[in-house]
This record gives sequence, structure tokens and C-alpha cells, in this order.
Amino acid sequence: MPPNLPPNCPLCALSPADILWEDARCCVIRVADAFHPGLCRVVWREHVAEMTDLLPADRRHLFAVVMATEAALRAQLRPDKINLASFGNMVPHLHWHVIPRYRDDRHFPEAVWGAAQREGAVHAAADPVALARAIDDALAEH
Amino acid sequence: MPPNLPPNCPLCALSPADILWEDARCCVIRVADAFHPGLCRVVWREHVAEMTDLLPADRRHLFAVVMATEAALRAQLRPDKINLASFGNMVPHLHWHVIPRYRDDRHFPEAVWGAAQREGAVHAAADPVALARAIDDALAEH
Repeated sequence: MPPNLPPNCPLCALSPADILWEDARCCVIRVADAFHPGLCRVVWREHVAEMTDLLPADRRHLFAVVMATEAALRAQLRPDKINLASFGNMVPHLHWHVIPRYRDDRHFPEAVWGAAQREGAVHAAADPVALARAIDDALAEH
Repeated sequence: MPPNLPPNCPLCALSPADILWEDARCCVIRVADAFHPGLCRVVWREHVAEMTDLLPADRRHLFAVVMATEAALRAQLRPDKINLASFGNMVPHLHWHVIPRYRDDRHFPEAVWGAAQREGAVHAAADPVALARAIDDALAEH
């Protein structure tokens, strides 16, 4: 681990195998969620806690990547809804959850952090190569 | 109710008394949440479901208002963390939750939609007039 990184922060030590898309400031990773395999996280590289800790240009960039990830997931998976969230209560390293939701998934219409509503259908994750290309395309568009 | 609005959408028919800040495109409202009184919602005026349904300039504007609300709540309330979320699973009218979180609140470190962790301290909401002024200031800065 490089010096000056907080010990035990899982988002400071991501596995390269999980990274779907990246640039110098942030990356999009796949998440092993058994009930919501399509869930992606957009992770800021630097260990900061809040969006408003970032310079305005940096927070706009991170938000643009979140929007590009939303657009790519919508185009590939056609979910019934997209859920976006940035909490950091357990891991105070800035990251966004971008979650394709389906009316028949385990928690709908509750948040995925809420009570299960049914056993729930499990919808496949996006194809990683096509997703990365779609994120690039969405960023280039705007 | 004006014509062409979806029936029974509570975010198409906000009470003016709940509006803390507004402009032509969106508004910030107070939310009656007994356990998290500081919770604010940023509501897009038009009845659309997803961020990527908006034109890029509009989604950047809405995001700037979410960031200004985060900055205003941090300055006034000094919470331990800010949580941001946009779901719309129950009310598919674009809105953001901006939630000041405290280590001793009812759900921390879970999301406020998760299981209660304790009875929980209840921290006061921001002063509405000062909050509106702080949102204006934060928007003017960037």
C-alpha cells in the first residue's frame, strides 16, 4: 500500500479485475451483489468523504461519469428505474451507487438497503466491454 | 390541478409552505421526517423520472442545486456525514434526498431506509431562512 493512505479502506485498494472503466480521477467498478448484479459503483480515486470536499470542476466531472454510467446501464439493460446514491457512512471514501431496478427485483419499490419484498428475480449485469464503450460514448456526447 | 399532470403525484402538487428555496426549474422542500428532521428534498418541477431524461444543461442545474443544498446543510448543521439519493421507485417524479447524518442517529451507519440501529438522537432541522440564503450563496459561488 502506498504511504499516506488510510489503512483498511477497501476503496483505496480496488482490484484491477473489478474496474470496468477508468480515467485519472475516478473509476467505475462492478459489484458482487447477488440480488442486484447490475449494480455499479463510481469511485473517486482520492480518499475524500463528501462531494462538496471536491473542487467544483472535480465534482462536475464525477457527476458526469455517474450520468454516463446511468445512460450506459439504461441503454444496455432497460431497467424499470435507476437508483442513485452516495452515502459513505461505512466507508467514508466518496463513491456512488448506480443501480438498475426492476419491478420484480427483491426489494422494489423499497431501496436495495430496505426490507426484502419477495424472493425476487435476478437480472443479469451489463456486458463489461459494451458498458465501458457506452460510458465513453455518453461522456463524449456531453 | 392543471391538465396534463399525472393524477396523484404528490411532487406535482407541493404545498407552498414546504418550499424552502425555489427557482423556475426546481425547488428545495422540508420533509416531515420524525427521526431525521434535517432531511431536505430537491424536486424537479417537471414530472420526469430519470436524471438522464433531462437535457444535459438541466441535469447540471439540478445537480448544482443538490450540491448547494449539501453545502448549506453542512455549514449550518455540521453533520457527521451527508447522504445523497435519488430513487423514485414509489414516486417516479425526479427528486433528490439530501440527508444530514449523525453517528448517534436512529439508523447510522445504515441508510435511513435500512434497519434502525438504536432509538437514536434527533438533531434539529436547519433554520429555513438561513438555509435559503446559504443555498443562494453556494449557487452564486460556482
